[in-house]
Amino acid sequence: MSLDDVLIRSDDPHHPANLICTLCKQFFHNNWCTGTGGGISIKDSETNRYYLAPSGVQKEQMTPDDLFVMDAQTLEYLRAPELYRPSACTPLFLACYQKKDAGAIIHTHSQNAVMCSLIFGDEFRIANIEQIKALPSGEVDPVTGKPIALSFFDTLKIPIIENMAHEDELIDDLHKTFAEYPDTCAVIVRRHGIFVWGPTIDKVKIFNEAIDYLMELAIKMYKMGIPPDCGIGEEKKHLVRGTDA
Amino acid sequence: MSLDDVLIRSDDPHHPANLICTLCKQFFHNNWCTGTGGGISIKDSETNRYYLAPSGVQKEQMTPDDLFVMDAQTLEYLRAPELYRPSACTPLFLACYQKKDAGAIIHTHSQNAVMCSLIFGDEFRIANIEQIKALPSGEVDPVTGKPIALSFFDTLKIPIIENMAHEDELIDDLHKTFAEYPDTCAVIVRRHGIFVWGPTIDKVKIFNEAIDYLMELAIKMYKMGIPPDCGIGEEKKHLVRGTDA
Amino acid sequence: MSLDDVLIRSDDPHHPANLICTLCKQFFHNNWCTGTGGGISIKDSETNRYYLAPSGVQKEQMTPDDLFVMDAQTLEYLRAPELYRPSACTPLFLACYQKKDAGAIIHTHSQNAVMCSLIFGDEFRIANIEQIKALPSGEVDPVTGKPIALSFFDTLKIPIIENMAHEDELIDDLHKTFAEYPDTCAVIVRRHGIFVWGPTIDKVKIFNEAIDYLMELAIKMYKMGIPPDCGIGEEKKHLVRGTDA
Amino acid sequence: MSLDDVLIRSDDPHHPANLICTLCKQFFHNNWCTGTGGGISIKDSETNRYYLAPSGVQKEQMTPDDLFVMDAQTLEYLRAPELYRPSACTPLFLACYQKKDAGAIIHTHSQNAVMCSLIFGDEFRIANIEQIKALPSGEVDPVTGKPIALSFFDTLKIPIIENMAHEDELIDDLHKTFAEYPDTCAVIVRRHGIFVWGPTIDKVKIFNEAIDYLMELAIKMYKMGIPPDCGIGEEKKHLVRGTDA
Repeated sequence: MSLDDVLIRSDDPHHPANLICTLCKQFFHNNWCTGTGGGISIKDSETNRYYLAPSGVQKEQMTPDDLFVMDAQTLEYLRAPELYRPSACTPLFLACYQKKDAGAIIHTHSQNAVMCSLIFGDEFRIANIEQIKALPSGEVDPVTGKPIALSFFDTLKIPIIENMAHEDELIDDLHKTFAEYPDTCAVIVRRHGIFVWGPTIDKVKIFNEAIDYLMELAIKMYKMGIPPDCGIGEEKKHLVRGTDA
Repeated sequence: MSLDDVLIRSDDPHHPANLICTLCKQFFHNNWCTGTGGGISIKDSETNRYYLAPSGVQKEQMTPDDLFVMDAQTLEYLRAPELYRPSACTPLFLACYQKKDAGAIIHTHSQNAVMCSLIFGDEFRIANIEQIKALPSGEVDPVTGKPIALSFFDTLKIPIIENMAHEDELIDDLHKTFAEYPDTCAVIVRRHGIFVWGPTIDKVKIFNEAIDYLMELAIKMYKMGIPPDCGIGEEKKHLVRGTDA
Repeated sequence: MSLDDVLIRSDDPHHPANLICTLCKQFFHNNWCTGTGGGISIKDSETNRYYLAPSGVQKEQMTPDDLFVMDAQTLEYLRAPELYRPSACTPLFLACYQKKDAGAIIHTHSQNAVMCSLIFGDEFRIANIEQIKALPSGEVDPVTGKPIALSFFDTLKIPIIENMAHEDELIDDLHKTFAEYPDTCAVIVRRHGIFVWGPTIDKVKIFNEAIDYLMELAIKMYKMGIPPDCGIGEEKKHLVRGTDA
Repeated sequence: MSLDDVLIRSDDPHHPANLICTLCKQFFHNNWCTGTGGGISIKDSETNRYYLAPSGVQKEQMTPDDLFVMDAQTLEYLRAPELYRPSACTPLFLACYQKKDAGAIIHTHSQNAVMCSLIFGDEFRIANIEQIKALPSGEVDPVTGKPIALSFFDTLKIPIIENMAHEDELIDDLHKTFAEYPDTCAVIVRRHGIFVWGPTIDKVKIFNEAIDYLMELAIKMYKMGIPPDCGIGEEKKHLVRGTDA
């Protein structure tokens, strides 16, 4: 059995090598990673390996052969496709693995993230929307030990950091947000996109979808004059008719 | 033949267990149930069983194995997948089955429903649009006994109720709207989404599509300054062009 | 060979019975015929038969078995599915066949058509857009006998008629537009949708796509303050910045 | 082996004849080439042949049999399908091959390109957006000889030329932009669409996706009052909320 067989060949659609390809294809059709933008990394907790999408590849055409695989202990590449360079996001992904105990990270160039970064200052905020309940509060149930989700009455807050010339230069600000927002599962990068992490790829996918839904809604609310974090029943005071005309 | 074989295995694409999965996948791609939001329940009238999508599952990846099945007589679960909890919507679905003689219920987090709930007060209204004719008036033809649809000249009215911390707390307001709007086939939940019911899943799917189309159109009309329930020929009086209008 | 085999069974994807189903499915995903709205009819010129989508069917699920087939000579139904009623559009489709020598008709509930019918008065107009060249001018090349397309510098004009309680009541206004707009290949019905016809289903599909593209663009131009039929170079005089905010 | 077998039959999905069809289908679903608009040409550098999509064909239904193939040396057609005329874009594609050493050209009727051509004057400009880094600066690394991409802090500039009655009349203005914008990989044609070229079809596809993403974003920024090429941190000064802003 070749090393590639061991690392990236599997009939299981949930194998990290297959899942990264499937999800990149799905995200491409959401306009989240066109033009080679964005990326995904998944940790295989059984083997303690990181699977990483490469830089510069067309995300909807990616195959397992295109992936980098890294030993989570030694941080050495177990496989590195000749054709590609590792993603410039790799140091950011490693920070999420190491500091946030992430099991997977999704990075997109979602236009909803870019637009929110132009509308909001240092923090994206939205409150009192059912979809918020899909996101973690950061707190844990003291009895069951399970993570507690945000409630309908909570305000979701996601930090926004400034973009840099190169993605690896974002690392300092990423660490800073880890300190200032210990409960956040995402960081928006202004004029760039978003990074979302969580304990498993299933959870991260759900977090990313819920956040994107909420950013899309926040932009629609903003365009109608409604502050996305305004109180329940306050919306009518802000609402403007005929704003889009 | 195992119980699962009896309850959820079928080659018929119209079997409730298959149909719920197919429709959830289709609705996911409409942005109606991303981030595990939304749900569907179908009554199998032959066997008198309710099929229910579980809580917290990724709707586009759902399989028949993920479904709950309940005896409509005893309200006991005939099958309950170990991995999942029953949907928090279950009491609401049961209310629709019991009080409205529903054959199926669709619940989505449609952004059109959320936006309409921010624009409108206690009632969503739209009038004089062809698509309204896809919806039931609540009246029945005295000769044929068949339900009569709304006419082009009618006003569709859908009640809007306030969201609560947990979905099961919506039950009182749901019963109240059953009393106040005996003919409605839908309720919008503010800052949350919509519930739509009807005699069969085919009908409910059509109702939900038609309502979503009309909510989408109402938002477009509103943004152009046109009240969605204004009279035919009144639209030009309200219309605003660009911002200098 | 049964009558059904003769009328609606074919391995040829271009057979009218197959093509209507394929296109209805494609149009459903364009939001042109959700909620059972819209319809298609194709004339099989070899056999002189009209193929018609039924009323009230879910357009993305339609199969050849659901279709009505009519003898173009006698106007009698050669097949009529028990489950369905003929489309209320049938008299309108027949008018297009008989008066405009149509080979096919597409009817959609396109929201772009509905919105244009709210913005425009009795005529939709757009000028100086490349896509206009996909549409027929109504004139014929005197040498080759081939239809001449509109030029980039032409203005596309599509009449808008008022909607009625029932589709068959549109027939008088449809005949009136045939007289007043002898060259048009389409009629917009206010607050309802659009009818498009042409010599073959391939042509009608292209006309419908091009018109929908142009209606979508006209709405975008209108929202920016630009009259869709304004002269080349005039757009900057009308343009307003920050209109959507 | 017939000539057609040599020119257009291949099991390789990356063969130009297959790739043009796959990409046209994909682009159709982006609303980039509905109504027979748009086109693609790919140079097979091994055989020195140009593959060209024909005029007037439905782009999502195209097959290798529909393609024109031209000898890059003699500019004679090696195959010309009886049913179709060569695309009116052919002289423009040849100009890109001959003057810009292109390996492929994509032409779309993207509404984002048309809207940008109505908003902007003679040049589309956007700055300080991560996605810009997917586009070439036109400069080459003196050591590696590889093309250098634009940086996050750069301004992407794409010339806009006026549309003409026939596509081949655009040739003079195309040559003019080659002279005035030697580093551009794209030209927007006002009220028409966009042409994008590059060394390989993979690169051109990425360029086209990135530019379309940036045009879409520029329109959103413009509608919120933000000049798409404004400096980082300047956006809040321009931002307008709702209509009362």
